[in-house]
Amino acid sequence: MHLTEGGVCAAKGFLANGIHCGIRKNRTKRDLSLIFSEVPAACAAVYTTNLVKGAPLTVTKEHLSNGRAQAVICNSGNANTCNANGIEIAEGMAEITAKALSISPEDVVVASTGVIGEPMSLEPVASGITELKEGLSVHGCDAAAEGIMTTDTVKKEVAVEFELDGKVCRLGGIAKGSGMIHPNMATMLVFITTDAAITAPMLRKALSGDIQNTFNMVSVDGDTSTNDMVVLLANGMAGNPAIDSEGEAFDTFMKALNTVNIQLCRLIAGDGEGATKMLECQVNGAASETDAKKVAKSVICSSLLKAAMFGADANWGRVLCAIGYSGVPMDVNRIDVAFSSPAGRISVCENGAGVPFSEEKAKKILSEKEITILVHLQEGDASATAWGCDLTYDYVKINGDYRT
Amino acid sequence: MHLTEGGVCAAKGFLANGIHCGIRKNRTKRDLSLIFSEVPAACAAVYTTNLVKGAPLTVTKEHLSNGRAQAVICNSGNANTCNANGIEIAEGMAEITAKALSISPEDVVVASTGVIGEPMSLEPVASGITELKEGLSVHGCDAAAEGIMTTDTVKKEVAVEFELDGKVCRLGGIAKGSGMIHPNMATMLVFITTDAAITAPMLRKALSGDIQNTFNMVSVDGDTSTNDMVVLLANGMAGNPAIDSEGEAFDTFMKALNTVNIQLCRLIAGDGEGATKMLECQVNGAASETDAKKVAKSVICSSLLKAAMFGADANWGRVLCAIGYSGVPMDVNRIDVAFSSPAGRISVCENGAGVPFSEEKAKKILSEKEITILVHLQEGDASATAWGCDLTYDYVKINGDYRT
Repeated sequence: MHLTEGGVCAAKGFLANGIHCGIRKNRTKRDLSLIFSEVPAACAAVYTTNLVKGAPLTVTKEHLSNGRAQAVICNSGNANTCNANGIEIAEGMAEITAKALSISPEDVVVASTGVIGEPMSLEPVASGITELKEGLSVHGCDAAAEGIMTTDTVKKEVAVEFELDGKVCRLGGIAKGSGMIHPNMATMLVFITTDAAITAPMLRKALSGDIQNTFNMVSVDGDTSTNDMVVLLANGMAGNPAIDSEGEAFDTFMKALNTVNIQLCRLIAGDGEGATKMLECQVNGAASETDAKKVAKSVICSSLLKAAMFGADANWGRVLCAIGYSGVPMDVNRIDVAFSSPAGRISVCENGAGVPFSEEKAKKILSEKEITILVHLQEGDASATAWGCDLTYDYVKINGDYRT
Repeated sequence: MHLTEGGVCAAKGFLANGIHCGIRKNRTKRDLSLIFSEVPAACAAVYTTNLVKGAPLTVTKEHLSNGRAQAVICNSGNANTCNANGIEIAEGMAEITAKALSISPEDVVVASTGVIGEPMSLEPVASGITELKEGLSVHGCDAAAEGIMTTDTVKKEVAVEFELDGKVCRLGGIAKGSGMIHPNMATMLVFITTDAAITAPMLRKALSGDIQNTFNMVSVDGDTSTNDMVVLLANGMAGNPAIDSEGEAFDTFMKALNTVNIQLCRLIAGDGEGATKMLECQVNGAASETDAKKVAKSVICSSLLKAAMFGADANWGRVLCAIGYSGVPMDVNRIDVAFSSPAGRISVCENGAGVPFSEEKAKKILSEKEITILVHLQEGDASATAWGCDLTYDYVKINGDYRT
């Protein structure tokens, strides 16, 4: 297995495009994206657990009840959420897209991201669909990745190549996600495509299993979005014997999916709203995986620790504090904490108490772009990793006046 | 019942003082406070639920096992937490204080607040205790309130006067709390004194009941401190017949306690680290009080909403978003949301969808120092209120480099 280019267009038979259709006022920013599979694909999805759900999610859920899809239409600039006519608009987007592609509206996944509670017009989508469709290409991933961005500052795309029963397969995704991101639910917008052949039930199994260790372990700000989903399409064009049960091929597929998803998680965390650095918390020595996940998330979600990391301040007391309120029972007098980054590794707490360390070395380590917080609980053998980012002036700036 | 002056010295027989003893480097800031009752007092306390607990809490819990105390010693600048010799230091503080006051160390409440994991020396306490004791006075509340402050910008003291069986009683408190504050546990440092006569069991009942609706409904940053506690001393010097059961006198006492605690909550929330405004979320029409509390807390804890309030941006979608992930089951299509402040009231969402409103008027309302977010769920008759603050550049600044 190795990384490759092309994102959602890496897999055979997938085309993509993104254009500016006018939902956003800023004309230099694409706001409508389309992903299209030349043949119908098995499709699985997971959705936000927020009770307040965007209308596109309701429509998509309905469309995916048969486990099949052929296209994804997604706009940024308006979440189409908390609007009286939201369902109508989301269905309208599916119909406009289906008509242009000569497919059934039920085979269209609809997604929207942006401001909540602002009425949305179908007009820009209707007038832009021809340009959007005609520009579909195997080189269109960049444009599609840009079209789904909101406050994101970088495009997020990853792809891998792997083999199933002697056939070369590819799996790649694009993601949008910057604020309103919190673990333990499907967060962000992520679209993944693969040409591997796999049945819809096994595709669902793969996706719902993998997100527990990937997207559900990312937090930017503790706020769970109303509109987020992860969608995975598999069109079978690689020609491998379809995966219809667990086994070696399924394991390989899971590995490919996990590789792509972890990379997308790191990209999302590192591009969290206002973030200057990506934080990773690795917890080892937990009594159970559930415990390890709770501790890792608790650390990554602490506003105080996030602010300390922004300031490159080795304030490990805040790591202990966050572990202490994680809800996991443990002997706090056994906790070890260390910080690491490309600049080195430094131990700051052993057996629950501080150890002398060089502030200068700590500052150097914490001034890097990617910081790992290493926690050992000495309670058992279970591990988990969570991803987040620092809390900065720019997070406040971005969210202090998002609508204007 | 009416508000009165004097904070923890409002009640008969209570003296207080605060000095700079040298725990903090900044010589202009008091860092050691003492509250003393002329006679032994019934005493109740609640403690943080964080598993990582400051050593002073362990020592205080032990001292209060007999429901009695006569003095409170509290330092700022060092939390005496996660230090190998923490218990020894906390016990040392109690002994030094007890000796100076000629009382038993078991009658001393010990509290510390400040940096976690930095070894603490008893020397400044030992050398300052004489000055601290000799300055004890009925006018010493201000000095004591200052001595417990960390990143607080204002002193927090409140007192009320009320009658029990014809006797004039007083109850007043001081509080410290700016960061690491999160509901559903005893947070912050709060010391309350009263001259009302009440048995230790009824005092515990009053305190543990009241904090559910007061201190447990405050959040500044979602981080639960390792060192916080609320301590309530009642010395009986008002001369009322001791309250030893529920009834009219107990109700009056509860009312006094609640009045003081709500004011302290508002002071703590409004002085949250970096805060420019106090946020109050009033939830009505919930199916149960538990539901109402969960929703109110979820709204007050949302980083996105807190940042929007900083920007005076009426981004009500974030209120709905936070309600949606609160974990409370409800029909989201019935939610009403309004904002109010001394500048007026504006309805922004009815039955789960936005309603047209004047952005200009909303801006004016949200530019005040105290904002109320009004939520009606239309699910039942239960209500709750939670308090918090906005998220600002200064929160990041204060916490980006707290230790230096």
